[in-house]
Amino acid sequence: MTEKLYEGKAKILYTTDDPDILLTHFKDDATAFNAQKRGTIVEKGKMNCQITVALFQWLESKGIPTHLIKQSADDKILVKRVKIIPIEVVVRNIAAGSLCRQTGLEEGSKLPFPLVEFYFKNDELGDPLLTRDRLLILELATEEQLKQLQNLALSINQHLQEFFASCQITLVDFKLEFGLDKQGKILLADEISPDTCRLWDQTEKDPQKRVMDKDRFRRDLGKVETAYQQVQKRVLEQLGSAKKGL
Amino acid sequence: MTEKLYEGKAKILYTTDDPDILLTHFKDDATAFNAQKRGTIVEKGKMNCQITVALFQWLESKGIPTHLIKQSADDKILVKRVKIIPIEVVVRNIAAGSLCRQTGLEEGSKLPFPLVEFYFKNDELGDPLLTRDRLLILELATEEQLKQLQNLALSINQHLQEFFASCQITLVDFKLEFGLDKQGKILLADEISPDTCRLWDQTEKDPQKRVMDKDRFRRDLGKVETAYQQVQKRVLEQLGSAKKGL
Repeated sequence: MTEKLYEGKAKILYTTDDPDILLTHFKDDATAFNAQKRGTIVEKGKMNCQITVALFQWLESKGIPTHLIKQSADDKILVKRVKIIPIEVVVRNIAAGSLCRQTGLEEGSKLPFPLVEFYFKNDELGDPLLTRDRLLILELATEEQLKQLQNLALSINQHLQEFFASCQITLVDFKLEFGLDKQGKILLADEISPDTCRLWDQTEKDPQKRVMDKDRFRRDLGKVETAYQQVQKRVLEQLGSAKKGL
Repeated sequence: MTEKLYEGKAKILYTTDDPDILLTHFKDDATAFNAQKRGTIVEKGKMNCQITVALFQWLESKGIPTHLIKQSADDKILVKRVKIIPIEVVVRNIAAGSLCRQTGLEEGSKLPFPLVEFYFKNDELGDPLLTRDRLLILELATEEQLKQLQNLALSINQHLQEFFASCQITLVDFKLEFGLDKQGKILLADEISPDTCRLWDQTEKDPQKRVMDKDRFRRDLGKVETAYQQVQKRVLEQLGSAKKGL
């Protein structure tokens, strides 16, 4: 029996006949600024589903454990049921977005090392930045889990940076979510898509034209669908040729 | 020759005939919420000057290096010239203020360990919370300096907590600033007063009546001067009897 378990801003989660398996439906809805801005990106659900499946499979092949079981429709995937850790793990290679607003760093400046940051996944509080100590005091994760999250995030960043570079895309920053399976093992969950990454086209120098991610929607830059299509095309082509190369 | 070097929200800094010595004048002006709220607390300059001198001398006697040379008037002190590190170091023993607003922790809940936090001393950016990595990327301090600041803050917290407890005052949280002298040594600078601490009267249970610090001004609780006077009285009496005990 299929039942709606949870509806988020960009996805809906359903139960399946198997209590350990859930169905994720990717929606076309787009929101920004903690849902103060709302809209639709045509075919976003299908595009983000395809891109997530491709990247999660690529990461699995590199040894990163994910919640993905398989794609079940153009905009749907079957996933292992996990308990989501209420932390948004953000990895930044280049300064952009809230990091610049909060610190005065210039947008586009390369960071001296990949910056792994933890945000409290809490809409009411506006997803605030957490220090390591605040995270421990809030008991959102144990010290051991924090260490694992940090290592997983850095490893995923390395693989994704390489992969996107081969697509002529710069991975500026991205957000990850993780969950715990029944055994307490940490699995990569949620999605990786232009909704959750900042991606800059290396073939474009213009700071507005190069944007291939949700910033086009956030900042009203236009051609949102074209950008998502372009990411999907390059990711799938690259994976196709990578597979052929095996 | 005396020249105004810098005017802050609560103090003015003057040069003196000795290039290594500055004069700090404590003002009666009070501001809150990044200077959006402004007012005057009668005799605050004198009270905060007295309290700062008493506490800095007490901390010096415990081995904490400070910039204080000596008091030169009721509301003035002579201090060693230092280069202020642009970080506000906050130590929290009990959850209050922005920590509660940002994390949802309940005001008054005891923290499992003293929380040392670093904020970017930058009015334009609204003094944002910094993670350790952001602080290093902004090059506000070196890793070694950070370690020293953390240790100094914890040590000062231990001494001040004990001292205020003997005055029947709970030290909820407080803000410190540090500077580097010509040799690069870190000295405690700025002030320690009801402007920069949250202090709760242990003889009062009422959560509004017990407030003995700038929160009376911030939150329009009234009797601001009385609270500051009470802190000054207890601190000076306690130091008097501590000196007699020697």
